[in-house]
Amino acid sequence: MERVDLNCDMGESFGAWSLGADEAVLPWVTSANVACGFHGGDPAVMRRTVRSALARGVAVGAHPGLQDLAGFGRRAMGISPDETYELVLYQVGALAGFAHAAGVRLSHVKPHGALYNMAARNASLADAIATAVRDFDPGLTLFGLAGSELVAAGERAGLLTAAEVFADRNYEADGSLVPRNRPDALLADAGAVVPRVVRMVREGRVASVSGADLAVRADTVCVHGDGPRVAEIARALRTGLEAEGITVAAPGARAHAG
Amino acid sequence: MERVDLNCDMGESFGAWSLGADEAVLPWVTSANVACGFHGGDPAVMRRTVRSALARGVAVGAHPGLQDLAGFGRRAMGISPDETYELVLYQVGALAGFAHAAGVRLSHVKPHGALYNMAARNASLADAIATAVRDFDPGLTLFGLAGSELVAAGERAGLLTAAEVFADRNYEADGSLVPRNRPDALLADAGAVVPRVVRMVREGRVASVSGADLAVRADTVCVHGDGPRVAEIARALRTGLEAEGITVAAPGARAHAG
Amino acid sequence: MERVDLNCDMGESFGAWSLGADEAVLPWVTSANVACGFHGGDPAVMRRTVRSALARGVAVGAHPGLQDLAGFGRRAMGISPDETYELVLYQVGALAGFAHAAGVRLSHVKPHGALYNMAARNASLADAIATAVRDFDPGLTLFGLAGSELVAAGERAGLLTAAEVFADRNYEADGSLVPRNRPDALLADAGAVVPRVVRMVREGRVASVSGADLAVRADTVCVHGDGPRVAEIARALRTGLEAEGITVAAPGARAHAG
Amino acid sequence: MERVDLNCDMGESFGAWSLGADEAVLPWVTSANVACGFHGGDPAVMRRTVRSALARGVAVGAHPGLQDLAGFGRRAMGISPDETYELVLYQVGALAGFAHAAGVRLSHVKPHGALYNMAARNASLADAIATAVRDFDPGLTLFGLAGSELVAAGERAGLLTAAEVFADRNYEADGSLVPRNRPDALLADAGAVVPRVVRMVREGRVASVSGADLAVRADTVCVHGDGPRVAEIARALRTGLEAEGITVAAPGARAHAG
Repeated sequence: MERVDLNCDMGESFGAWSLGADEAVLPWVTSANVACGFHGGDPAVMRRTVRSALARGVAVGAHPGLQDLAGFGRRAMGISPDETYELVLYQVGALAGFAHAAGVRLSHVKPHGALYNMAARNASLADAIATAVRDFDPGLTLFGLAGSELVAAGERAGLLTAAEVFADRNYEADGSLVPRNRPDALLADAGAVVPRVVRMVREGRVASVSGADLAVRADTVCVHGDGPRVAEIARALRTGLEAEGITVAAPGARAHAG
Repeated sequence: MERVDLNCDMGESFGAWSLGADEAVLPWVTSANVACGFHGGDPAVMRRTVRSALARGVAVGAHPGLQDLAGFGRRAMGISPDETYELVLYQVGALAGFAHAAGVRLSHVKPHGALYNMAARNASLADAIATAVRDFDPGLTLFGLAGSELVAAGERAGLLTAAEVFADRNYEADGSLVPRNRPDALLADAGAVVPRVVRMVREGRVASVSGADLAVRADTVCVHGDGPRVAEIARALRTGLEAEGITVAAPGARAHAG
Repeated sequence: MERVDLNCDMGESFGAWSLGADEAVLPWVTSANVACGFHGGDPAVMRRTVRSALARGVAVGAHPGLQDLAGFGRRAMGISPDETYELVLYQVGALAGFAHAAGVRLSHVKPHGALYNMAARNASLADAIATAVRDFDPGLTLFGLAGSELVAAGERAGLLTAAEVFADRNYEADGSLVPRNRPDALLADAGAVVPRVVRMVREGRVASVSGADLAVRADTVCVHGDGPRVAEIARALRTGLEAEGITVAAPGARAHAG
Repeated sequence: MERVDLNCDMGESFGAWSLGADEAVLPWVTSANVACGFHGGDPAVMRRTVRSALARGVAVGAHPGLQDLAGFGRRAMGISPDETYELVLYQVGALAGFAHAAGVRLSHVKPHGALYNMAARNASLADAIATAVRDFDPGLTLFGLAGSELVAAGERAGLLTAAEVFADRNYEADGSLVPRNRPDALLADAGAVVPRVVRMVREGRVASVSGADLAVRADTVCVHGDGPRVAEIARALRTGLEAEGITVAAPGARAHAG
């Protein structure tokens, strides 16, 4: 049976500042990556977001980031593996407190922003993240860029992993994403998003910007939480994938059903 | 059997800055209140402090504070009960992550500084704290000033509570502490500390500054973590209490043994 | 000649988070109170906001707040007069750097949120603020609630002061604002805003909720920066006041012209 | 006439946490680099440190760092030139407020930690720093590693610059410092510190770890503020240099005298 997860970063508001369209996206996705206070999110937002996801039956995961509120966790930082382990464990624990109080278990962890990108390429940082996740709860699924060091580290740590693909981003021939500052970073044709994801799930292949096909493992599709049309894209993906007979469900559900 | 706990605030270093004499105090106390990052402490300090306490057989508790690093959590803030609930749950969860990874359960929660003082007098804030603690884990013991609203709130929430007394502070006739800015805030005679605590434990009474005796419930004695002679005082209390035949042990141990 | 200033809090975005409608409001106001990074604002926002105000010919002032980003500076804190002096001087200096680099001098200082409210009632904190402003630049105008301790402190410090009134808030008979949590905090009739301000400027009087008239000094009118219709209200006030023949200009301009 | 400056990082305490031996070092140095709140320091510490330096006749400069309190500004961050400009201008302005209130002008700016190291190698970041300093006050002296991009950027911006050398660190043959994690990072022989600095000042040469001599411009010597023996080293340098007939004075004094 073909299946895939739709995940979205959420709970990235902070104090007086709102961000994202969480309530509009929640009906269409199956995994919510909830910010944990270091790059965005605060205790009130975390409590509210966990409850909203739970009410919609969406799996709740932690979305830990670098301790850089001013830069929204998007600026690379020279942190050590020990510091990486510690900031992940702190944030996962903090979110788990809210999940536990709401009567739900965390299902997954997906690092945010620069931490995600650093861990995609750096095996030491990736191992630190995977170890923190496993030390907290070996039943958690670790989300990482498909083909990255983070997915490999999760497997080394004995965790379930979910290889993440991006619906609207172009890929280089080596499987990395075209950087955001290039004009071809995003798909030119919005109508191509759904068939592209269907092919990634069904055939495990996607066309790179070089024209050549690329093998890709697509366990979960990222729906960007801070774009203006995020709810529309999430809806198109959910309905388009299901119309193709692809089951849309959180990886944890798969693992438990497996 | 007479028994009492000796607790000390710990893990209040932050980044490049050191504070306290944790390693020197740990041999003598039975409960460690570990800072959780809002008023002091950081993920690296939390990890290290949990491990040190565990290695010494000292019970590990959370010491959540107001989000005021610059003021070390000592300045009162006008926070709502909801905000109080959320900041306690966040911090307890974060510390529990480190405890869980180290293979130990949290035993208690003691609010820090201004949060402790606000909760001693304000029943709404006290209830918010007690509810957060119970929602996280109803097996946790809540520490609060003896005779305060916080202890009452813990009992309303169905939690085990530990009434805290201060070894070297003077009391008003109403059971409150003489404010730190008064010349008689501290006991004049250091030699009086141990017999005073022995009497609090054994008779449930202590002399107030008015001269009149005060009834006091002494489940746990606070050893100040940031004073210069803290290790010396902790040692004197531990050996002095045990020489009197009083068992010195964490409240959780009592509860489990009860 | 009758004249009044229209001021608006600005530059309260932070990092990835946007707040306010600064560009839409700037054409109508005469003083911009620019957040300085403690309750909102960051160095990039400060630089941009100073330039925007300068481009519109709007007077640039500092809007220092409590160091409480999570609470947007709206929660009272138990800070000392020394701490108050220091946080004001720090923030005014920081903003002055951007003003200086842009070739403009700061014209005024208006404390934000809880700091504004605390200084309205507490003479020691008000004196600390006024002293910091004077020590930085005795040519700055200090904005404070009309009739408050802050205006009195500014006068004691030898500063020019601007007594602030609120266009859409109701007043108690004693001159304080009806608290926001009361149903009658805001004027019921939006159409009453302009004639009400005209009367405050022209007659120095406003009707309180008790029905009785209140004497009020109206040097500057606050236009709320984070409401949805802020640009519309700013425009109505500017055009309405000018249609009545009232000059709308920053206090500094008055002082220089005086 | 031979002359050189002795500078020391200062004011790096924060809130309840103390760091450094400022009062013990001040009698021996001629320039104080005062932390500005992003990596260390807070408004109270800044005020106090400016006053102490002024009382000792020591030149006051700004020591801006990355916004990373938890990492003490020592972890590299992927910031843009615009962000660099803004964080320097913000911090220099903030410190200038305290200097101005104390009746003294800032004399110099020396970036801290990772910002210093990034600017030593990256011309874009170095230009951003130099431009911020010049936009604030073209009379400020910019301190940077001798031979680095930061000194070159200061010269491009038309600033006075001070090339900094390190008394107790070993140099590579290319003029960079031996990294701290290498066993030969520090001079093995403490007694060699003074003659080594004398030679750097007098001959403009220093032996690298390869054995080969290196040309070096030594306008100012860094005395590490957080080492245990910092006051002792500062004293040895001051008295040793003066015994050799070398004038020890802040660069600003030289510039004014020139």
